Amino acid sequence: MKRIESVNNPTVKGWKKLHTKKERDVSRSFLVEGFHLVEEALKKKEQILELIIEENTAIPRSWDISGLEVVYVTKQVMAAISDTETPQGAAAVVEHLAVSSPSNWQRLLIADAIQDPGNLGTMIRTADAAGMDGIFIGSGCVDIYNSKTVRSSQGSIFHLAHFKGEIVEHIDNFKANGISVYGTALQGGHPYQQVEPAEKFALIIGNEGKGIQPELLQQTDKNLYIPIYGKAESLNAGIAAGILLYHLRG
Amino acid sequence: MKRIESVNNPTVKGWKKLHTKKERDVSRSFLVEGFHLVEEALKKKEQILELIIEENTAIPRSWDISGLEVVYVTKQVMAAISDTETPQGAAAVVEHLAVSSPSNWQRLLIADAIQDPGNLGTMIRTADAAGMDGIFIGSGCVDIYNSKTVRSSQGSIFHLAHFKGEIVEHIDNFKANGISVYGTALQGGHPYQQVEPAEKFALIIGNEGKGIQPELLQQTDKNLYIPIYGKAESLNAGIAAGILLYHLRG
Repeated sequence: MKRIESVNNPTVKGWKKLHTKKERDVSRSFLVEGFHLVEEALKKKEQILELIIEENTAIPRSWDISGLEVVYVTKQVMAAISDTETPQGAAAVVEHLAVSSPSNWQRLLIADAIQDPGNLGTMIRTADAAGMDGIFIGSGCVDIYNSKTVRSSQGSIFHLAHFKGEIVEHIDNFKANGISVYGTALQGGHPYQQVEPAEKFALIIGNEGKGIQPELLQQTDKNLYIPIYGKAESLNAGIAAGILLYHLRG
Repeated sequence: MKRIESVNNPTVKGWKKLHTKKERDVSRSFLVEGFHLVEEALKKKEQILELIIEENTAIPRSWDISGLEVVYVTKQVMAAISDTETPQGAAAVVEHLAVSSPSNWQRLLIADAIQDPGNLGTMIRTADAAGMDGIFIGSGCVDIYNSKTVRSSQGSIFHLAHFKGEIVEHIDNFKANGISVYGTALQGGHPYQQVEPAEKFALIIGNEGKGIQPELLQQTDKNLYIPIYGKAESLNAGIAAGILLYHLRG
């Protein structure tokens, strides 16, 4: 049984570094916190590198942790590696999960330069709920392994396939596979209600302030907008994704 | 011209207290920060009690501030009253805006015990965009004048009428006015797609964890759910509100 008492232990320092994108990129791993997220991570057990348990914390009986490296830590160590105010007694270091290709997806959400970690996490959760095959994370997006993104995905980061890459390089492939590619814009294009639900579609949601890259808007089959009936200037990007995904999947 | 230099000035202390619900309730006022929100507040100028401008900050020419009490403050004072990390040079103290009755509304969102300030703000923004007549804030909700709620409403708190009260006491009135009252539940009831858009409806969204009060669910005309097609356990409350409001208004 491995046990760590000191916040100065090199392993602890390594975990703390996982709060930076740089270290997550280099190590190809990220940290998840709390019983719910660790439980979701356990559904893909082979991807868990280390399970971190605070001493005197009971591991739920339903968890199958056989074969896993479990590290017991003091309350101080758990507090040091946590970025929440009231850390729970469980955390895990998990390998990056991105798939190597989105080419077999038929229904997908494409995130173009989404900047808010909470928005991206909510979009992952919503795309999972709407039964998408995956989410395409454009290169301009905030890091999907950001702790806020992981948290607001509510575990869906472990359910929904994701791919990271340059969106413009894949649009033609999607179209060649019979997938209707829809952009979104505040104005211009078609009210979304005019588009019928489809078996195969890709929906692009753009940056919270600037919207979709103009280059991408020209490559789509159609660009859609959600009519604003009141005085709001726009909808939150996650809300727009929810309305459109549920409309398009019918 | 009124000018305040010291963070210990009693007026400054009064502004800081507006970050507590208690003080907002007693003074029947709240604080908004940033150029965008102050500009939205200016559209109902009579409700602005004080306009707070950081010295050396240019007031946008488009703002009509005639007749308003303007207080100029130092950078230190602005930082002291702000709850953002990078305060902008403008803030305002605004009177509470709640309407006295929701009885002339025909389309509305009802928030039952929404606890997350960001969720409530996003719901206000979404209900505004969807052209609702107002939002009914149930007594169990987080304070609508919370700075996070105001911020995530993106100014819609100044566009969309809101009423605060006990939901159960108003359901029968809504029904008597020909308004279809829809509850929402994770399971049970009807998939929302089975319900046709309507001229008059009230949609109730419940607490993020517990859902709608059981008592309320029994008073509704119908209870709706949004099917989950993937592995997510649920949708974010704000996302659910967006999908349902846009479906119901047609």
